[in-house]
Amino acid sequence: MALVFISKRLGFCAAHRLYNPKFDDATNERIFGPCANANSHGHNYEVEVTVAGVPNPDTGMVMNLVDLKALLVTHVFEVLDHRHLDLDTDFLGGRISTAENLAIAVWEKIEPHVHEATLYSVEIFETPTNRVTYRGPAEQLDAP
Amino acid sequence: MALVFISKRLGFCAAHRLYNPKFDDATNERIFGPCANANSHGHNYEVEVTVAGVPNPDTGMVMNLVDLKALLVTHVFEVLDHRHLDLDTDFLGGRISTAENLAIAVWEKIEPHVHEATLYSVEIFETPTNRVTYRGPAEQLDAP
Amino acid sequence: MALVFISKRLGFCAAHRLYNPKFDDATNERIFGPCANANSHGHNYEVEVTVAGVPNPDTGMVMNLVDLKALLVTHVFEVLDHRHLDLDTDFLGGRISTAENLAIAVWEKIEPHVHEATLYSVEIFETPTNRVTYRGPAEQLDAP
Amino acid sequence: MALVFISKRLGFCAAHRLYNPKFDDATNERIFGPCANANSHGHNYEVEVTVAGVPNPDTGMVMNLVDLKALLVTHVFEVLDHRHLDLDTDFLGGRISTAENLAIAVWEKIEPHVHEATLYSVEIFETPTNRVTYRGPAEQLDAP
Amino acid sequence: MALVFISKRLGFCAAHRLYNPKFDDATNERIFGPCANANSHGHNYEVEVTVAGVPNPDTGMVMNLVDLKALLVTHVFEVLDHRHLDLDTDFLGGRISTAENLAIAVWEKIEPHVHEATLYSVEIFETPTNRVTYRGPAEQLDAP
Amino acid sequence: MALVFISKRLGFCAAHRLYNPKFDDATNERIFGPCANANSHGHNYEVEVTVAGVPNPDTGMVMNLVDLKALLVTHVFEVLDHRHLDLDTDFLGGRISTAENLAIAVWEKIEPHVHEATLYSVEIFETPTNRVTYRGPAEQLDAP
Repeated sequence: MALVFISKRLGFCAAHRLYNPKFDDATNERIFGPCANANSHGHNYEVEVTVAGVPNPDTGMVMNLVDLKALLVTHVFEVLDHRHLDLDTDFLGGRISTAENLAIAVWEKIEPHVHEATLYSVEIFETPTNRVTYRGPAEQLDAP
Repeated sequence: MALVFISKRLGFCAAHRLYNPKFDDATNERIFGPCANANSHGHNYEVEVTVAGVPNPDTGMVMNLVDLKALLVTHVFEVLDHRHLDLDTDFLGGRISTAENLAIAVWEKIEPHVHEATLYSVEIFETPTNRVTYRGPAEQLDAP
Repeated sequence: MALVFISKRLGFCAAHRLYNPKFDDATNERIFGPCANANSHGHNYEVEVTVAGVPNPDTGMVMNLVDLKALLVTHVFEVLDHRHLDLDTDFLGGRISTAENLAIAVWEKIEPHVHEATLYSVEIFETPTNRVTYRGPAEQLDAP
Repeated sequence: MALVFISKRLGFCAAHRLYNPKFDDATNERIFGPCANANSHGHNYEVEVTVAGVPNPDTGMVMNLVDLKALLVTHVFEVLDHRHLDLDTDFLGGRISTAENLAIAVWEKIEPHVHEATLYSVEIFETPTNRVTYRGPAEQLDAP
Repeated sequence: MALVFISKRLGFCAAHRLYNPKFDDATNERIFGPCANANSHGHNYEVEVTVAGVPNPDTGMVMNLVDLKALLVTHVFEVLDHRHLDLDTDFLGGRISTAENLAIAVWEKIEPHVHEATLYSVEIFETPTNRVTYRGPAEQLDAP
Repeated sequence: MALVFISKRLGFCAAHRLYNPKFDDATNERIFGPCANANSHGHNYEVEVTVAGVPNPDTGMVMNLVDLKALLVTHVFEVLDHRHLDLDTDFLGGRISTAENLAIAVWEKIEPHVHEATLYSVEIFETPTNRVTYRGPAEQLDAP
């Protein structure tokens, strides 16, 4: 019974702004720096989802990568691509559009549709050097 | 007398929108598609400038890459990073913020400051698969 | 009148074999090495087409990158992806399926459909370290 | 006693076809789509193996990366490069040549030869956006 | 309580040599091969640090990536960039400058300064195909 | 008669130092900055050579990429990999080891051995963002 992890990556382009209306502008700028600029900025985001499961002996697949890509296209790309993450969609449910919250939101959107396997992680590259990983609400750091 | 080309690449993150106020909204959407979305989208842009010259025998350099990077930082990164290309700056001089016009604008901003060598090209990666190159106003296509 | 070059890149996966029926098997193996193996091998090809033109002042575009991508999808991706270059298609017109001939064939297929601008180059990445560029039948090396 | 993971990556080019002879052609096409095309397609595969161990204080190494590369060259590259995964080799032991099964097969071939350290994972990139990871037969998903 | 991992990557250029003075030269060459060459060689190293934590609801951040980058700049880049790892610094504390020991040393330098979150891993790319990961002194391989 | 360009890329790891003995140390540091550090630094260099020619109709090749790779291995990799560019070899003929001079030296070493085609360019990536191109002693900038 071999557990295998399969991952699909997809890119989308979006604008966003980091800003908490509970704070005044000076506080927002202190915390978020140029990410708080009023007219927003943007990224070529890349999102990678990983699911885990035992390959079906008849197909050799944990889950068809075509189906995994379709989940990303339907639930992420078509909702976020060429949009403003904060103004055009409630994808983030009112949360601040950090890569952390974006990874959590992608998990919440994708997880109910993964039936053949178990969603294992969602990874967001905000830039080539900024990466965030979420492994679901059950993930705990091992005690040292 | 060996002509050599040296190139420096730098990334910046920005929002933009493709929209011509001369057109009505339906025409803008027909021409620019989702790039015309009202709340904008964004990219991790990469810009690469190339200069040409003969290496100085005492330094082995066409131009110090540190200086070439400084030109990019001062005239591009500090003006555009974490900004909205259309709303926060007159970098594009009123032109539509396509990658084509962005490459031309970078040329115009950088060229007056390249003294030790000759500016040869400006390349913009809007996404990893969309690339634009500008080699200055004198560039002509060879007749077939 | 600013000439600008715009490029679009697209990947496809295909099998191929380098083999000239004019030669016997030993000669094919001597010339083509493991590329002549009878059961074929394959690649994740990447193709990048570049067109040149003057940006339209009303759109800021040399040619819409969406249209350039559509040419690649219709005339290259839909014909070659997940196919055997030599057995499933006459894309290469009987020529040996080297990256050189593949670049020429992509040019021939795409060039008649580029109307708003001038096709400037076709680039094929057969592997991340093997690259081929074709700039059309008029291209000459400068005399030294 | 510091546990450290070291990884070596290597590419190879191969053809393959996803097809289960237990199914009729229509079923194969429904399940595998264009991956079932009769004349095969191919990829620039990348394989990355990771081993874990405590660095030897005298060498600073978990295992010599030169030796780890040699295992990949001998047991993977020399068997699969420029081959057809299904027709030229019994590397997969009759299993369907999905990336999942390929990762398992690489583990089975490499694991008996890793003596200085413990094989931790095998990762296959079938394309830049399709990735599969296998961490051996003992791997279990943590209970939620 | 959602645990999220955030990662920052940074590059630096350095020279180094693998050589253990306890061994004679022939032994060093046998163990370390060309890495033992007397005049040293070098790399464009990339280091990626990952921290784990629960995003602050008011900021959406596990830890500000600007602060995480600052730790890398202060404690790694400014000490190692354009230096010789073995001759210019005691960063490695006398250990041989393998990527394994470098990952451990980066952990030791960074960990005391990570307060808002928990340091989870340090990853070193010595080359694009040589990667090392260290997850701290508590990391154990799961029993099979 | 279709002119086609083929390119092969290869990496090597080396140390170097930018230092002109004609200058005193302060001048070297002013010109070369940290590149002048006495104990040297290093890079994962990538070199890409491009040759141009008309594909042979019987082979479909401008030149066999295997032969082009062999030239790079013999005349560049085996001489420079895991070496100090300034101390271990006279590859640069006494010139300062900038990427500019390195590109010229690679041209000089490779060009006499390219018989089937014409050497067109040598490209050096010193880092992912520092690139140098040399197209031979005959290259001139077009007059504006």
